[in-house]
Amino acid sequence: MQNVEMLIHARWLIPIIPRNLVLDYHSIAVNHNKIVSILPTSEAKKQYHADKIHELNDHVVLPGFVNTHTHSPMTLFRGLADDLKLMDWLENHIWPAEVASINPEFIRDGMQLAMAEMLLSGTTCFNEHYFYPDIIAQCVAEAGMRACVGMLIMSVPTPYSQTAEEAFQKAEHCLAKGSPNSLIQFSLGPHSPYATDDSILLKIKKLSEEMNLLIHMHIHETADEVERGLKEYHKRPLQRLAELDFLSPRLQAVHMTQTSDEDIKLLQQSGTHVVHCPEGNLKLASGCCPVQKIRHAGINIAIGTDGAASNNNLDMFGEMRTAALLGKMVANDPTATSATDVLEMATLGGAKALHLEHEIGSLETGKSADFIAVNLNEVNTQPVYNPISQLVYACHSTQVTDVWIAGKQLVKNKQLQTIYQNQCLAIAQSWQSKLESHK
Amino acid sequence: MQNVEMLIHARWLIPIIPRNLVLDYHSIAVNHNKIVSILPTSEAKKQYHADKIHELNDHVVLPGFVNTHTHSPMTLFRGLADDLKLMDWLENHIWPAEVASINPEFIRDGMQLAMAEMLLSGTTCFNEHYFYPDIIAQCVAEAGMRACVGMLIMSVPTPYSQTAEEAFQKAEHCLAKGSPNSLIQFSLGPHSPYATDDSILLKIKKLSEEMNLLIHMHIHETADEVERGLKEYHKRPLQRLAELDFLSPRLQAVHMTQTSDEDIKLLQQSGTHVVHCPEGNLKLASGCCPVQKIRHAGINIAIGTDGAASNNNLDMFGEMRTAALLGKMVANDPTATSATDVLEMATLGGAKALHLEHEIGSLETGKSADFIAVNLNEVNTQPVYNPISQLVYACHSTQVTDVWIAGKQLVKNKQLQTIYQNQCLAIAQSWQSKLESHK
Repeated sequence: MQNVEMLIHARWLIPIIPRNLVLDYHSIAVNHNKIVSILPTSEAKKQYHADKIHELNDHVVLPGFVNTHTHSPMTLFRGLADDLKLMDWLENHIWPAEVASINPEFIRDGMQLAMAEMLLSGTTCFNEHYFYPDIIAQCVAEAGMRACVGMLIMSVPTPYSQTAEEAFQKAEHCLAKGSPNSLIQFSLGPHSPYATDDSILLKIKKLSEEMNLLIHMHIHETADEVERGLKEYHKRPLQRLAELDFLSPRLQAVHMTQTSDEDIKLLQQSGTHVVHCPEGNLKLASGCCPVQKIRHAGINIAIGTDGAASNNNLDMFGEMRTAALLGKMVANDPTATSATDVLEMATLGGAKALHLEHEIGSLETGKSADFIAVNLNEVNTQPVYNPISQLVYACHSTQVTDVWIAGKQLVKNKQLQTIYQNQCLAIAQSWQSKLESHK
Repeated sequence: MQNVEMLIHARWLIPIIPRNLVLDYHSIAVNHNKIVSILPTSEAKKQYHADKIHELNDHVVLPGFVNTHTHSPMTLFRGLADDLKLMDWLENHIWPAEVASINPEFIRDGMQLAMAEMLLSGTTCFNEHYFYPDIIAQCVAEAGMRACVGMLIMSVPTPYSQTAEEAFQKAEHCLAKGSPNSLIQFSLGPHSPYATDDSILLKIKKLSEEMNLLIHMHIHETADEVERGLKEYHKRPLQRLAELDFLSPRLQAVHMTQTSDEDIKLLQQSGTHVVHCPEGNLKLASGCCPVQKIRHAGINIAIGTDGAASNNNLDMFGEMRTAALLGKMVANDPTATSATDVLEMATLGGAKALHLEHEIGSLETGKSADFIAVNLNEVNTQPVYNPISQLVYACHSTQVTDVWIAGKQLVKNKQLQTIYQNQCLAIAQSWQSKLESHK
């Protein structure tokens, strides 16, 4: 008998690699916060001794979700304004709300609420894009989550920075201070092609190359953006970025609802990652990312919920489901974007986009112990002919019972371990009162 | 002080009529299973005395959902076969499974599982379409639910009937026996234009007129169906039905993913109801019902989940959300199919399609006490700027805490009161074993 820190005995285990595999009655042995073995439970019980043993008899265990695009603090604006046109929504609702509220306290409070929601719904890692990245990183560290914190840079004046130059300087300052721990990396977050001119893009590119920093950017979110690019620069925004040599495997192109065959070639040749946010794109009628085409071109594609101000939640189950359903319709093929495809996008796809596929995104020996347990023995997920189908097409995120990140249990039987849930709810209500009194 | 049977004190109350209204701190007084008053809680506490009082301080109370198209017993096939083309799915998976399993025991077991899921997710009334309608009606009566039970009639031989004539005779027999109680009505369920010839349609029409029976039918589900109709009858299926004088306010046209302007005119002139099943349509890449156009033409439109074999759940929250998101994309307008629109479709729209709008579908004095309570004080639905937005865009169906039908409480603090949940789960697993051993 060998000693390990933790043993997880699961009814089903979905390792993601190999693709489309479901293991029955398998176990994970964890030591020093890493997966040391995956083996049949009958063997695990003979081979390993552990202090912490979790018997998950009704559960499927799989890698935690990687929410590859979100604006977490905006969760405090959830449902503030819906069913509006993009510019009406931004100019008359979201931007005034931001001017009235964006400060370090808002960021900290919004992060608590967002991380509570993400953890309870099985997200272990997220790709952030908002103001005050240093404060965000601190919040992530306190909660024990994994994240890539994008440092937002845009030319439009905001409560955080008056110019893109100022935002860039703040990003450099943040990098100099460094990340609070090894679960958190910073990335550069130019808002979009239309909100960043060539000179700042070249500075961002240079810094990204020098420090090997990832770049997190909205690209081709709407048809209007592409038209505007054609008018101003006489080329599509992605083409403009290509000519600046901005496309690379370090870049995450978020949205890409407008994707021509030429665009696909540019993404493919450069190794750029695509992040698909289907629910936000539908809600704003922005268009549909051609997921199947992108996948067939061998381009990596991940899934993001976008911010809760637009979506209106941070639920990767819902986003996977919508990605699968919408992908079939867009491809006009019910076999397109299968449950297996979108589950891979939501885990390994995100890990690859964040250059973390050596650590997370699948359950394999040597990878970090970042995984979740989902109880399928509920009336809406029985019978279980195929756990992957059930997860994508039938499951509620509330069926997540346990969440581990780097071996540490952050959700235990549906209870948060590092965030006070009642405090989050009270905080949300208090910000609502403030924002409503400001109207 | 006046005595009533029950008082519900709600943080928020959404009556549906008047449209888009949210009442703060309001109460419902119920007597003899009917709503006798809706008034501010402060007044209700002065005016009424009741033995049963429910203080729902974090909850929104609204009419129960009307799932206007489903095949409940097929819930036992949930996830049996996914990501397949329609005919592959039907011919190689669903039909063989039906041949292997359809019998009264299967119907009873499937009904238990389906009704458990519907009740726990806030559905109080459903529009059924499957074999053995007499057994289905009996199950519905035992559970205390409200339903319109469609008696399936089709020319294709099935384990229930060899011909449309035989199915029609069984329907007449079922009508002669009568419905088990006043919450249950029978309707005629011709499968589709392609699976029913003119002679049986004329018999169905005659019986519908004589006995004032509703008709529940799949119409224009796929482009293929319309093409087939054009080849065989040299007209679109809806046009063929119109010429048979089959369209009327008694008809529910389910799916309508292929809807020309001429089709809209036919629906409008005849007062036919449309039932929208967005998730099933997407999953089979059947097409998209033009909801906004249909609504603007003044045609009543309801929402159905379709059967769990295709969808793969019976969750009206998810279906509303998808209806809202997809509707915007199809209309290319983010203000289309608002949260208010889809909530109305999921309640009052369904009630109208079932000719029950005098009894259910809104909270009004004199209507039946069919309503649900949803706890919005969860991390995924705070803050609550607008309860209607939260219900449609952010809420999980697991936030439904209490369900009443005709004044009787069928779900109490998330616990089923008339169905044994653990028995449902065991039954589902036992059918899974049977069906898998049969493969």
